[in-house]
Amino acid sequence: MDTTRQDCAARDAADALAPHRNAFALPDGVIYLDGNSLGPLPRATAARLREVVEREWGEGLIRSWNSAGWIDAPRRVGAKIARLVGAQANELICADSTSINLFKVLAGALALQAARPRVSTNERRVILTERSNFPTDLYMAQGLADLLGGRHELKLVEFDEVAAAIDERVAVLMLTHVNYRTGAMHDMAALTRRAHDAGALAIWDLAHSAGAVPVDLNAAGADFAVGCGYKYLNGGPGAPAFVFVAERHLAALADRTFAQPLSGWIGHRAPFDFDPDYAPARGIDRFAVGTPSILALAALDCGVETVLAAGIDALRAKSVALTELFIALVEQRCAGLGLALASPRDAQPRGSQVSFAHEHAWPVMQALIARGVIGDFRAPDILRFGFAPLYVRFVDVWDAAEALRDILATRAWDRPEFKQRKTVT
Amino acid sequence: MDTTRQDCAARDAADALAPHRNAFALPDGVIYLDGNSLGPLPRATAARLREVVEREWGEGLIRSWNSAGWIDAPRRVGAKIARLVGAQANELICADSTSINLFKVLAGALALQAARPRVSTNERRVILTERSNFPTDLYMAQGLADLLGGRHELKLVEFDEVAAAIDERVAVLMLTHVNYRTGAMHDMAALTRRAHDAGALAIWDLAHSAGAVPVDLNAAGADFAVGCGYKYLNGGPGAPAFVFVAERHLAALADRTFAQPLSGWIGHRAPFDFDPDYAPARGIDRFAVGTPSILALAALDCGVETVLAAGIDALRAKSVALTELFIALVEQRCAGLGLALASPRDAQPRGSQVSFAHEHAWPVMQALIARGVIGDFRAPDILRFGFAPLYVRFVDVWDAAEALRDILATRAWDRPEFKQRKTVT
Repeated sequence: MDTTRQDCAARDAADALAPHRNAFALPDGVIYLDGNSLGPLPRATAARLREVVEREWGEGLIRSWNSAGWIDAPRRVGAKIARLVGAQANELICADSTSINLFKVLAGALALQAARPRVSTNERRVILTERSNFPTDLYMAQGLADLLGGRHELKLVEFDEVAAAIDERVAVLMLTHVNYRTGAMHDMAALTRRAHDAGALAIWDLAHSAGAVPVDLNAAGADFAVGCGYKYLNGGPGAPAFVFVAERHLAALADRTFAQPLSGWIGHRAPFDFDPDYAPARGIDRFAVGTPSILALAALDCGVETVLAAGIDALRAKSVALTELFIALVEQRCAGLGLALASPRDAQPRGSQVSFAHEHAWPVMQALIARGVIGDFRAPDILRFGFAPLYVRFVDVWDAAEALRDILATRAWDRPEFKQRKTVT
Repeated sequence: MDTTRQDCAARDAADALAPHRNAFALPDGVIYLDGNSLGPLPRATAARLREVVEREWGEGLIRSWNSAGWIDAPRRVGAKIARLVGAQANELICADSTSINLFKVLAGALALQAARPRVSTNERRVILTERSNFPTDLYMAQGLADLLGGRHELKLVEFDEVAAAIDERVAVLMLTHVNYRTGAMHDMAALTRRAHDAGALAIWDLAHSAGAVPVDLNAAGADFAVGCGYKYLNGGPGAPAFVFVAERHLAALADRTFAQPLSGWIGHRAPFDFDPDYAPARGIDRFAVGTPSILALAALDCGVETVLAAGIDALRAKSVALTELFIALVEQRCAGLGLALASPRDAQPRGSQVSFAHEHAWPVMQALIARGVIGDFRAPDILRFGFAPLYVRFVDVWDAAEALRDILATRAWDRPEFKQRKTVT
C-alpha cells in the first residue's frame, strides 16, 4: 500500500529527533532541503553572537583574547568537531576555508612523501583524485602543483575507477568522501587501506560528511582531512573550515619547518615572541595561519553543538529513512515525468542527499523554490535535495515530493521567470 | 606654560571629530589606546549583525547569496576600503587574512618578475624586506620561498637601510608601511619609485595604515598591497583582510592561470559552472579563494563606515595632535622615570601610535591596564599606545600620561600579579 501524508505525520510523531527542529529558527512556509549548501540558523546562535559582540568585544575589547578565551577558540571548536569525525582533539583545528586547508594538507602530504626513502627509482608524481570532486579541491591542487614547478601530475578518474587507479606512482589520494552532486559516498577505510598498501597517503574532504554521516578518521587510518563549517554543521554563511592531521604525521612534520607552507604567525610556536624566523608549533596549531574570526567561530560553535546534541548515529538513521522515503515517493508519484535518480539507490553508500537528473533541472528548481521547497541546482542537470535530519520532517519529504510531482505534471516550471539564471544557486 | 587637563578638555570641546566617539560602544572606566590591535565595537555593528543573522541567514537562508547580495560582499566592502587607500574599486577585495593575502601577492609579484625579459644574465632572486617587519609577513615569505625550491633569498635589513639595499638583484620590495612596534612610517612613494627604477616590484602591508593615515596606493605607484580589517578599520576580532593589485598587473596576470596560486573556486571565472579546470577571474576577484564569512564581512563593513564618516584627512590631523600631545606630556611629566621614545619624534613619518621603551615594560603595561588604560606590550621592552582619533579624546591622553607617571613614580608596577605573562598581550 502506498505511503500517505498521514503515515509521514505518524513517523514524525514517533521520531525521537523531532524536538531538535526547535533548535532552529526556520521561516514559515519553507521546506528547507539545502542544509548541505547552507545550514539554517540555530536559535542559540543569535544570542551567543550578541554576547560575543556586545560583551566580549564591546566591553572586553583586546582583553578578551585572554579573558574570553578567544585565542583558544580554533582548538576549542575543533575539539568538538573532532568528536564527530573520529579524530582526537589534538588532531583537528578550525581555520580558514576548506580550499585553503586543502592546500596546506596537500603540501604537507607531498612533503612527507618526498622525505620517504624510495623503494624504486621512480618518483611518486601522481595526485590521484576524482573528476567529479568538488572543483575547488581540483583547483587548489592545480595551483599547488604549478607552484611546485610541474613535478606532479593531477590524475582525474571517475568515481568507480579510483580503487583501480591506486598504484605505486601515486603520492597522494585526494578524495571528497561524499560527492557534492550525487551524494555517492566512498568507502573511506577501504580506499585508505588500499592507498597505504600502495605507499600513498590519503586526504579526505568531509564537506558533505561532517555532521551528516558517521566518520571515523582514525579507525580508517586517514592521514589528512579537511571539512566545511557551513553545511551540515550549521555554522553560518562562509563559516570557518577545519583541518585534521593524524597525530603520527604531526610528529613526522615537526622537524620540517615549511611542510605546511602557509606559515603564518598564529601557527608559530611562540607568536608573541615576534621572532623574525618561523618555527612551527609542534601540534595541529601549525595548520593555523592568520588571526581567526572570533565572530565566525562563535557561530560555528553553536552550529556544531546542534549536531552533538542529537548524536551522529541517530542522525544517520533518520537521514537514511528520509532519503529512502524521498526516493520511493518520487519514483512512485513522478514516474514518467523525466526524472532519473542520480544518487546511489542503496542507502549504505549514499550521503544525506538525493539528486535527480532532469532535462529542465534549472527551471524546475526555481519553480520549487517559488513554492517554498528549497533545494538546489547543480550544473548541468541536477536537482539536489539535502535531508538534514536535525530539522527535516517526514511530512516535509512528502510535501516536497508532491510539489515536485505537481510542477512536473503541470509544466509549472515552463515560465520565463524560472528560466533566468542567477549568480548563485 | 605647561598643558593642563583643562586645556585638554577645551581641545575636546572644540574638536569637530568629538561626536564620532558616540559611534562606538566604549565601556566606562576605560581609556582605550589599543585600537591598533583591535578596534572597538561600533554601535551600528550589533544591530547590523542581528539583521544579517536573523533576517538574511535565518529567514533568507541560501537565497540570501543572491537576494541579500552576499556574493558581492567582498567586493562591496573592498570598494569602501579602496576609497581610504587610494585604490580603484576594481583593484581591491576583502578576503582571508593579511598573512594569506601576502602569500598571494608575493607569489603574483614573483610570477610577474619571472615573466619579464632579463636585462642581464643575473636572475632577480632577492625579496627585500625589513627585519622589524611584522613577523607573519616574514614567515609567509619564508614559506613561499621554501615552496619555490630555494631560488629566492629573503633579505632582511634595518628600517633605515631599505632604500640603499634596493638594487638590480631585488625582485620584490615587501614592506609594512607603518611599523607595528615603533609606528615609524616609510615613504611609500619614494621607496616604490626607487624599487621601480631598479626594476623591482613593491608590495605594501597597510595593517597599521588603513584608517589611520592617508594612503594613496595609485599615486605612489604601488604594485600590490594587503591590509588588516580589525585594527583601525574597527571590523571586529579576526575581521577579514584585504588585498590590492594595481589594474595594470591584473591585466598582465590575466593570462597566467596560477600567478595567484591559491586558486580556489571563488576566484574562478565562473564558479557555478563547476568546471574541473581552474580559469581565473580576470580582475581582482581571482584573489578570492574560498567562501567568505558573511558575518565577519558585515561587521567589517560597519567598521569601515566609521572611518569613512569622519574622513581620513581630519582623522590624520587629530591623530598628529594626539600623538604630539602624548609625547610632550610624557616627556615633561615622566622625565627621569626610565622611558625612552621609540617612535619618530617628527610627526610626519609617524603613524597613529606612540611607543616608549622601558626596562619593565611588561609589568608597567599590566599596571596601566589594571587602571583601565589599555595599551599593549611588544617584546622585548615596548609600551605601545595607539591613538585612534575616532574615539580617543585629548583628556584621555592627559589621563593616560598621568597614570603612566604615577605608576612609574610609585613603582606601582612592581607587584607579582603584574609580572605574570599571559598568552596574548
